[in-house]
Amino acid sequence: MILYDERLVSREEADIDIEDRAYQFGDGVYEMIRVYHGRPFYMDEHLARLERSATEIRLSLPYPITRLKQLLLDLIQQNHLEEGNVYIQVSRGVAPRYHGFPEQARPLVIAYTQHAKRPLAELNHGIKAVTTEDIRWLRCDIKSLNLLGAVLAKQTAIDHGAKEAILVRDGIVTEGSSTNIFIIKDGTLHTHPANHLILNGITRQVIFKLADECEIPISETTFSKEALESADEVFLSSTTMEICPIVEIDGRPVGQGVPGPVTKQLQEAFVNEIKRTTLAESSS
Amino acid sequence: MILYDERLVSREEADIDIEDRAYQFGDGVYEMIRVYHGRPFYMDEHLARLERSATEIRLSLPYPITRLKQLLLDLIQQNHLEEGNVYIQVSRGVAPRYHGFPEQARPLVIAYTQHAKRPLAELNHGIKAVTTEDIRWLRCDIKSLNLLGAVLAKQTAIDHGAKEAILVRDGIVTEGSSTNIFIIKDGTLHTHPANHLILNGITRQVIFKLADECEIPISETTFSKEALESADEVFLSSTTMEICPIVEIDGRPVGQGVPGPVTKQLQEAFVNEIKRTTLAESSS
Repeated sequence: MILYDERLVSREEADIDIEDRAYQFGDGVYEMIRVYHGRPFYMDEHLARLERSATEIRLSLPYPITRLKQLLLDLIQQNHLEEGNVYIQVSRGVAPRYHGFPEQARPLVIAYTQHAKRPLAELNHGIKAVTTEDIRWLRCDIKSLNLLGAVLAKQTAIDHGAKEAILVRDGIVTEGSSTNIFIIKDGTLHTHPANHLILNGITRQVIFKLADECEIPISETTFSKEALESADEVFLSSTTMEICPIVEIDGRPVGQGVPGPVTKQLQEAFVNEIKRTTLAESSS
Repeated sequence: MILYDERLVSREEADIDIEDRAYQFGDGVYEMIRVYHGRPFYMDEHLARLERSATEIRLSLPYPITRLKQLLLDLIQQNHLEEGNVYIQVSRGVAPRYHGFPEQARPLVIAYTQHAKRPLAELNHGIKAVTTEDIRWLRCDIKSLNLLGAVLAKQTAIDHGAKEAILVRDGIVTEGSSTNIFIIKDGTLHTHPANHLILNGITRQVIFKLADECEIPISETTFSKEALESADEVFLSSTTMEICPIVEIDGRPVGQGVPGPVTKQLQEAFVNEIKRTTLAESSS
């Protein structure tokens, strides 16, 4: 089943119009929520961000976020999703093509689930990355459907046998094509400030909490491509990739070329956070 | 009828999947072609640009451009389109959501027609515009479906009772939200060079030809917001808006606040160009 507007329907029943504004303009926002043990992880934070993204592009959700939450929980249950992802997207709706906002259109919510295991090989051994120019727009804080810049960057990584592209704007590392990027230097974590140039990842925010609990110093300051290249450890974070070591960048090893101790400590804390929040007796 | 892949079908038969990459990533390109007197205007140039846009995002059209041209001509004929637009879009196709290019997906072409008269009131009396910051990505030369920046800019114009937003990046006027922008100062036309920051409009290219024929000097150089504000005349160009005077910017009149003589001269040449190409005895 998928969620279509306010109903759970079979995928075949979902009727996307050629003049849906998501289809013609990328005019919409989305979220991806991870499910562990049949329970969504940090769902309220994802839904709050969805609402914020929508507000920033002046899109009104067609019904309250509390209603959406219940529908997503129903979807997870009906699809027997134990381990996987929930993808949710909201478009501005269907209207005759014109750039300005339509007056009548009802925004369209769709959501579906994907069964997916945790990426254990990558989490244990790390991944390769390449750097590439950040050519995206100047509102990367909005989780919008305008993802072509990210698509082209990801493909550049794949072309080079790597798993992620690290984006560099004016010499500064912003984030990955679909992840946030952290470096560790002399025991301190550094990541780009949450401004208009990056998405403030939910996993990123969880890491701030975990670093605090682990007493790992964390600094939300910009850093250069050179700092990236000379970091002791580098990792990425995202909903689906969690905290994943980056062990090679542009063909050169990061540190010793294996996942480092601070990254591993945070990964362990993250697994505990999964257990704490999705194996708890109280429901989400 | 609409064009769906390689067939003309009723709109209801068009089956857009929720995992169409245009729907989830804006991963596709498009064109809008004007039809006058039942004949497409500068169709070959639009189709060549479609092919270029596709190439730039490494998308292969599912069949040759010559085949697409014939299908579009069939569509125009079957829909009895005398005056209006043909909208064409190509997405990278349907695949499980992942940023990198899918290996198997067949790109999906859709096209449909709209009956539309020439915007005579705007062409005769001019329109109002506002300036706003250009926050779009750095590949505006690609006519892609990532149009949210343009959408937000256009809405800003509408909110201010204007018809178009003129985009300014680092103090330089790039283009309009869905148009190119020209200024006239001391008899010379100026417009932003056709680089990665603007779309090289087909109407823009026609204007270069017409200006040459009219012996109006034309300079493809950047100009500042201040130059825009002190211009003798300003006009926009686009497929649907043709050559349209801008008579007010940010609440202040342009020149005398009415369409100027150079703009009118080019408009007249443009109407002659429409007649020459779409009323000619030879078919396009």
